[in-house]
Amino acid sequence: MTAGHPFDTDTEVASVGGGRHTATLTDRWTALTGAPNGGYLLAVCLRALGRAMPYPDPMVVSATFVRAARPGAADVHTEVVRTGKRVATGQARLVQGDTEAVRVVASFSDLREAAGPTMVLDRPPTLPPPEKAVDPLGGASIPGITIADRIEYRTADKPGWLSGAPNGDPRAEFWMRFREPRDHDLFALAMLVDAASPAVMELGASGAATLQLTVHLRAHPAPGWLACRAATRYLIDGHHEEDFEIWDSRGALVAQSRQFALLR
Amino acid sequence: MTAGHPFDTDTEVASVGGGRHTATLTDRWTALTGAPNGGYLLAVCLRALGRAMPYPDPMVVSATFVRAARPGAADVHTEVVRTGKRVATGQARLVQGDTEAVRVVASFSDLREAAGPTMVLDRPPTLPPPEKAVDPLGGASIPGITIADRIEYRTADKPGWLSGAPNGDPRAEFWMRFREPRDHDLFALAMLVDAASPAVMELGASGAATLQLTVHLRAHPAPGWLACRAATRYLIDGHHEEDFEIWDSRGALVAQSRQFALLR
Repeated sequence: MTAGHPFDTDTEVASVGGGRHTATLTDRWTALTGAPNGGYLLAVCLRALGRAMPYPDPMVVSATFVRAARPGAADVHTEVVRTGKRVATGQARLVQGDTEAVRVVASFSDLREAAGPTMVLDRPPTLPPPEKAVDPLGGASIPGITIADRIEYRTADKPGWLSGAPNGDPRAEFWMRFREPRDHDLFALAMLVDAASPAVMELGASGAATLQLTVHLRAHPAPGWLACRAATRYLIDGHHEEDFEIWDSRGALVAQSRQFALLR
Repeated sequence: MTAGHPFDTDTEVASVGGGRHTATLTDRWTALTGAPNGGYLLAVCLRALGRAMPYPDPMVVSATFVRAARPGAADVHTEVVRTGKRVATGQARLVQGDTEAVRVVASFSDLREAAGPTMVLDRPPTLPPPEKAVDPLGGASIPGITIADRIEYRTADKPGWLSGAPNGDPRAEFWMRFREPRDHDLFALAMLVDAASPAVMELGASGAATLQLTVHLRAHPAPGWLACRAATRYLIDGHHEEDFEIWDSRGALVAQSRQFALLR
């Protein structure tokens, strides 16, 4: 938590009892559709759910996006499903008016207490150092896509689709970090896995509607830039997955996610 | 549906009104722990939820395994979250006594109505034809692991761990099908993604406890053997993902899944 940081301010929830929490969704995390980004909504849900969980760390998180949300007041209803010895599971539903926008089931644990073997069979992204990489947006703001004002990106080369020439390859590696300085915690990672442009933009897509997002949080990230890898391998009748990995500045995998999305 | 087939009989639910369905879990789908396999429990949940959904096909399915289930009576409580023009979303909770064992959120659609571009960037598994491949169990039954009596497996070579010599590589390709003949539908695929031994057995693990399983159903499978690919790439402090793909006899990807599991 960083006092006054937009991520902390804009995901803040107030508990009003009975598992109900109030939140105010802002217009500072909007993506291609102009609606608040799914990862941002997920972070709001996790902050509410975190208050009811006896363990500090979201570990495996599944979000189903039922309807688009809009900036303004929202309620988050939380339910504790089970509290076990090392893992607790709960559900959060983000509701605006009478309609549910997002349903999250998440298991929390204490990742610092995890003990077991480690074997990492893939490598972090291969990227030039952030200070030698390209700002794909060239420092410009994109009207309506306010999430790009919150997050900085760095790429080896300018993405083809951003120059109007999609390169046909729905795989990308890049750096990300908060634009206003703040360490990335697990709640931020759950938002960041959804904070880059869809990999299918390089296939000429104009966007993707995410139906479902599952995030595995693997470790607390070290401070600094995050190395990211996004890929779509199977686009079938417009349906596709997007796999996403976040590696921290020590070269440790800290988050892994998969979305199910429909091509717009 | 095949009259009298164990998969149909053992996933049958009876609706008793108010979104409540009764089921009887059998001991014919037990895995390493002796408890009913997670994929089997998921199929029971999806059959109950399918009755409440206006579309026939489970498309994206997320299951959280809260507690082990046991053979015997169970209730499945279903809730329709949203019915949209092409996608409907619901929740199912499998409960035994007073305790919840599985919570599923799933979106249904009509996959035959899906329209959009297709681009497949990876290949089906490379396997010898099933009739030239090895039955890894050598036709034997494994006491307690009744799911292996329901499903046939074929591999290029006998897996190392089954001979007491784990080969150190948590990736596997193999054929699967129902042992008693029955076409594989989408409900069967949602079970089958969880019906092979964990990929981490080749690392010398004695098993894995699945906390969460997300399945993307991509297309109705053609009849015949199913070519499967399982892999774990990131084992960190005992936590790991298992990715699973099922390709049908035409060479089409029909299901893709990821689990989050803890090493036993």
